[in-house]
Amino acid sequence: MSGNSLGRNYVVTCFGESHGRCVGVVVDGCPPGLELSDADVQRELDKRRPAASSIFTPRREEDQVEFFSGVFKGRTTGAPLCMLVWNREVDSRPYEKIRWTPRPGHADYPARIHYKGFNDYRGGGRFSGRLTAAYVMAGAVAKRLLEGLGIDVLAHVVKISHIEVVEAPSVEEIITHVYSNPMRCADEDVARLMEHVVQDARDAGDSVGGVVEGRVLNVPPGVGQPIFDSLDADLAKALFTIPAVKGVEFGAGFKAVSLMGSQNNDAYTMKDGQVVTLTNNSGGVLGGLSTGMPITFRVAFKPTPSISKSQQTVDVRALVDTDIEVKGRHDACIVPRAVPVVESMAAITVVDHLLAAGFL
Amino acid sequence: MSGNSLGRNYVVTCFGESHGRCVGVVVDGCPPGLELSDADVQRELDKRRPAASSIFTPRREEDQVEFFSGVFKGRTTGAPLCMLVWNREVDSRPYEKIRWTPRPGHADYPARIHYKGFNDYRGGGRFSGRLTAAYVMAGAVAKRLLEGLGIDVLAHVVKISHIEVVEAPSVEEIITHVYSNPMRCADEDVARLMEHVVQDARDAGDSVGGVVEGRVLNVPPGVGQPIFDSLDADLAKALFTIPAVKGVEFGAGFKAVSLMGSQNNDAYTMKDGQVVTLTNNSGGVLGGLSTGMPITFRVAFKPTPSISKSQQTVDVRALVDTDIEVKGRHDACIVPRAVPVVESMAAITVVDHLLAAGFL
Amino acid sequence: MSGNSLGRNYVVTCFGESHGRCVGVVVDGCPPGLELSDADVQRELDKRRPAASSIFTPRREEDQVEFFSGVFKGRTTGAPLCMLVWNREVDSRPYEKIRWTPRPGHADYPARIHYKGFNDYRGGGRFSGRLTAAYVMAGAVAKRLLEGLGIDVLAHVVKISHIEVVEAPSVEEIITHVYSNPMRCADEDVARLMEHVVQDARDAGDSVGGVVEGRVLNVPPGVGQPIFDSLDADLAKALFTIPAVKGVEFGAGFKAVSLMGSQNNDAYTMKDGQVVTLTNNSGGVLGGLSTGMPITFRVAFKPTPSISKSQQTVDVRALVDTDIEVKGRHDACIVPRAVPVVESMAAITVVDHLLAAGFL
Amino acid sequence: MSGNSLGRNYVVTCFGESHGRCVGVVVDGCPPGLELSDADVQRELDKRRPAASSIFTPRREEDQVEFFSGVFKGRTTGAPLCMLVWNREVDSRPYEKIRWTPRPGHADYPARIHYKGFNDYRGGGRFSGRLTAAYVMAGAVAKRLLEGLGIDVLAHVVKISHIEVVEAPSVEEIITHVYSNPMRCADEDVARLMEHVVQDARDAGDSVGGVVEGRVLNVPPGVGQPIFDSLDADLAKALFTIPAVKGVEFGAGFKAVSLMGSQNNDAYTMKDGQVVTLTNNSGGVLGGLSTGMPITFRVAFKPTPSISKSQQTVDVRALVDTDIEVKGRHDACIVPRAVPVVESMAAITVVDHLLAAGFL
Repeated sequence: MSGNSLGRNYVVTCFGESHGRCVGVVVDGCPPGLELSDADVQRELDKRRPAASSIFTPRREEDQVEFFSGVFKGRTTGAPLCMLVWNREVDSRPYEKIRWTPRPGHADYPARIHYKGFNDYRGGGRFSGRLTAAYVMAGAVAKRLLEGLGIDVLAHVVKISHIEVVEAPSVEEIITHVYSNPMRCADEDVARLMEHVVQDARDAGDSVGGVVEGRVLNVPPGVGQPIFDSLDADLAKALFTIPAVKGVEFGAGFKAVSLMGSQNNDAYTMKDGQVVTLTNNSGGVLGGLSTGMPITFRVAFKPTPSISKSQQTVDVRALVDTDIEVKGRHDACIVPRAVPVVESMAAITVVDHLLAAGFL
Repeated sequence: MSGNSLGRNYVVTCFGESHGRCVGVVVDGCPPGLELSDADVQRELDKRRPAASSIFTPRREEDQVEFFSGVFKGRTTGAPLCMLVWNREVDSRPYEKIRWTPRPGHADYPARIHYKGFNDYRGGGRFSGRLTAAYVMAGAVAKRLLEGLGIDVLAHVVKISHIEVVEAPSVEEIITHVYSNPMRCADEDVARLMEHVVQDARDAGDSVGGVVEGRVLNVPPGVGQPIFDSLDADLAKALFTIPAVKGVEFGAGFKAVSLMGSQNNDAYTMKDGQVVTLTNNSGGVLGGLSTGMPITFRVAFKPTPSISKSQQTVDVRALVDTDIEVKGRHDACIVPRAVPVVESMAAITVVDHLLAAGFL
Repeated sequence: MSGNSLGRNYVVTCFGESHGRCVGVVVDGCPPGLELSDADVQRELDKRRPAASSIFTPRREEDQVEFFSGVFKGRTTGAPLCMLVWNREVDSRPYEKIRWTPRPGHADYPARIHYKGFNDYRGGGRFSGRLTAAYVMAGAVAKRLLEGLGIDVLAHVVKISHIEVVEAPSVEEIITHVYSNPMRCADEDVARLMEHVVQDARDAGDSVGGVVEGRVLNVPPGVGQPIFDSLDADLAKALFTIPAVKGVEFGAGFKAVSLMGSQNNDAYTMKDGQVVTLTNNSGGVLGGLSTGMPITFRVAFKPTPSISKSQQTVDVRALVDTDIEVKGRHDACIVPRAVPVVESMAAITVVDHLLAAGFL
Repeated sequence: MSGNSLGRNYVVTCFGESHGRCVGVVVDGCPPGLELSDADVQRELDKRRPAASSIFTPRREEDQVEFFSGVFKGRTTGAPLCMLVWNREVDSRPYEKIRWTPRPGHADYPARIHYKGFNDYRGGGRFSGRLTAAYVMAGAVAKRLLEGLGIDVLAHVVKISHIEVVEAPSVEEIITHVYSNPMRCADEDVARLMEHVVQDARDAGDSVGGVVEGRVLNVPPGVGQPIFDSLDADLAKALFTIPAVKGVEFGAGFKAVSLMGSQNNDAYTMKDGQVVTLTNNSGGVLGGLSTGMPITFRVAFKPTPSISKSQQTVDVRALVDTDIEVKGRHDACIVPRAVPVVESMAAITVVDHLLAAGFL
């Protein structure tokens, strides 16, 4: 019944529930001396808020981080950082229903069994997307650490339902555009098409999924702890802990399958005195170690299971089939909000490995 | 510089190198009382041998497992199991070359940096596919444990280069066919096409990749340790530690992105007194917990980087561009040999989680 | 810079500082369904308060536990429990001095080096005895779990300076007397002598140490995870994390050294159908496994380093010798307050091992 | 059923049994580039052999280390080191008896329960002192690492039964004398008295215990990971994993209890530009961190439970009282042989912490 800590050197322990008092996180392993303010973390939390757009449910979700420990005179002390956001007054009554009729696509049913019926089912409890606020708080600190090493972590939406960004955007395009449209997409034209798709799903009481691409720039080569604590394995683990993730691939990923070895191998060359590769099909990881090239990966999010359409389920008390209609304000697409979450889990993992490698 | 152990309850520690004395594994956490013979492990090791086929390099790789500890009177004692296979006489001279000119697509370059130039580079050292013999030995014991619970772990090749199995085979088809053709494919007709593709790559001095599907049947619902040690996150981590893996997806995976929520959600129904789902787009995992449905996943393998074509690389001493031709006997496709390895990593992870859940 | 989590199955993560906002703890791994109220934890926290006595500095330290997560409808959910006590307004100005002149016997000097000068030195920061409030909160939950199994954890003071309890008290004597005198001693006559010694030390601006004996009753035999995660090794580790502990021994401990093997070996006999031992020199642990007899151990506490006498130290900026007088309200003996802390660390460790053994 | 690995950065995994094929160890986390030969490890293993003396059973125990992995061209590669010693032909028949009549003071009874009767009971199986050969092999590598940092690890016998070294020997005296007498005592006169005591015990078919003092010199200040992975807590854990250890204390240890705070506090002073303490009652550890002074500790060993005198026990099948006479060649005192084992566990722990602190 444990499993709520991640990492070996930068250890992130998450607590809290969707409709409890708060969602919080303890970060153990942050080196002392890092300048860190509430604003550094708040900035990242704000990225997780839905953009003002007709496609998102309007809400006043104004999560404000509070620090409980680990900072003194504006700098980290080396002691654990405890940070949290409070949950505001919520109406938990609708959730009494899901106690006995698990929502398809949600964790209600297996959670009930795992926790022997004692789990806090209100708002999805521990399985709510709200928990990712904890990921983002821990990730914000990780990003501050990476900043000091010149390492950037970027994520952006590359696909929503069938709408896909065809040409890989440049780093500059990502930085410029990703937070200027509600879809968190680096291509504004594609973003508008994505918005339409989401609007349509919303109108139909349905939902859509998407793909987030992540990039970590300027990681020095040789980082990772093969053979089991390899960099890509740990990144994949961290990314799969984000709710709704169903796939992770690095570099050419599943497309590499259809390439010939001679196409897929990234040839080495010297550039400005550095060993670089001409292509980056490996996604910056070979043998579980960073190559020095950008670490690139793609994360598949299923359509959010929260839909207002009627769905078939069972009554777990009566053990008979029944239907469920899940009321409430649901976003038809949570993928844009996952962008800072993907960045956070990548940052957390890379910091963990940089600490192991002595870079921090 | 650690990272060579995997798991919390069923702890697998791997040692050995491609051209050292041996490749071995210590399994800590196997419950006492399991009947276990050399033959149980040898059976799985034999599955890892390349099938007799013109598409594979003929070799007399006859890895015989040796037990060093942990078994007494034909049963596990609860003490660590140490198992190994010896390396036979090998010609390591060709590898002196890769010391200074890293092979594209291999770990040579980042490994050199990570290990400060002291790594055993012969045959790829710790990064050789040969290390997967250790995975299979540990997996063989895990499978024996799962057997006792009626849990089956299956894997089979579903794609080689562009050739893909279109219709999902039944469990019976997998069991019947997967080891009766050299491609480890459940569809014999598709297998023959795959063979042609591999033969063509081989003739061209090139290589191809593929996709292995895995299934774990009869895992009880509720298994996993959310939010961070979730079942899918740990499976993904374990699968990404297999050399050449570039992508992992569960259930509908990346395809789920283009489904509507109402299509992707798996409706619940009662069947024979059990709660089941009508579809299994989740791949048997929701919220990091098993649902009781088959756990299904797909693993993307890049084309093996070992090709005989000349490739561009650099001389890491002179820091100039150069070319490399990697001689030796290379398989043009290693995906069929990965099938028992995928099964092993899945079995190891599921056993680890079943131990946590008190099922073993 | 990590190291603030303890345990594998019942994972205790501590955060907070002496003069920060709070001292808190996250407990991950508590099984779901345990009835748990604030009062259960408060009861243990109250035991940690100094008894009303002229030998202790009068204070209004009224730590009230607050739950932040993990309890729903009066029961644990299986999710992490976050609990904390707030720090009240404190005067941190005296501590500016210790920033540069480390107090002898305190962690000031090595902490400064370890944390590169960024540690929160106010009130000793992370090294304050106040942190043990976190231990006690985590221990209170562990005790509730043990209660359900009929396992009792007891501790009592057996020695203060030269004053020692000669005859081992019975369990009943411990339960009856330990919280009825300020020394937490099971022998009221000895307790009065101890009080005199503490009063004398207090009058002299000095301090005294002591020994706490702990007992864990009714642990079933066979609990522990040899060879490295053995029960006594983990108990010792947990006990040594209590500030001021300088020694730990089990059963006959250091006295066993002077016994003959034939005296020290605990002979087995049948009693009421159970295998028991006639003596318990082993302290209930053999080969790192519980024997089924009471687990008994003794913990040596040094005299608290906080004394008002002038002491020689150095100025770490000027690198010259200097003197320090530590003002403020110090207890001349902290050993009685350590009693619930010892109980807590024992309870935490035993619960961790019982979870591993499947008893919880 | 796991627990056979120790450490976070220098991870020692032990396998093998007393009467199985071998006793071995995998060391994961040794940095690459360390010059390491069989002789480096053999030297330490040889220290574990009983000295030629009438007080020890003559035997031809000539454990020769074999390396299986992790060394290439005379240096560590950064990959796991697997080392083992073979078990020679042994007569296991006498041990059939202990299967049902547990030997007092040995782990037979709780081991039987823990391993559900499946443990290899021959020669004590996993609980044999023979397992410490694995500790010494792992410790030998750790010592080589410490050598490079100028850190020395010393241990010596300071007490056997009632015979005690009164005055603390100098480092030079320890180095000069400890391996020149069979008792591993730095005071040759006391050593002779100890020999008499052991001889008497041997003649009586009985056994005696003792105390080993350990010192680690030149550890830089600030090493340790408070609050839970503190240096003393981890040293204590490691030392308690040595068979027969019943107590561990640091610095003044249990004697500190009877000192006043003003006596026990170690005053700081400048010496040769370094901050040092005038006394070392802390044993070089404050707040779980090294102070820069020698780390000193004492380890209590109970008299070895292997005696030839008849002892009372039970028949665990018939559940009746019975007697047991343990035949075979037993040493009446195993404390001298524990000296290199104590050194090894200290070296392993210090290396683990130095890696965490970035010193290695």
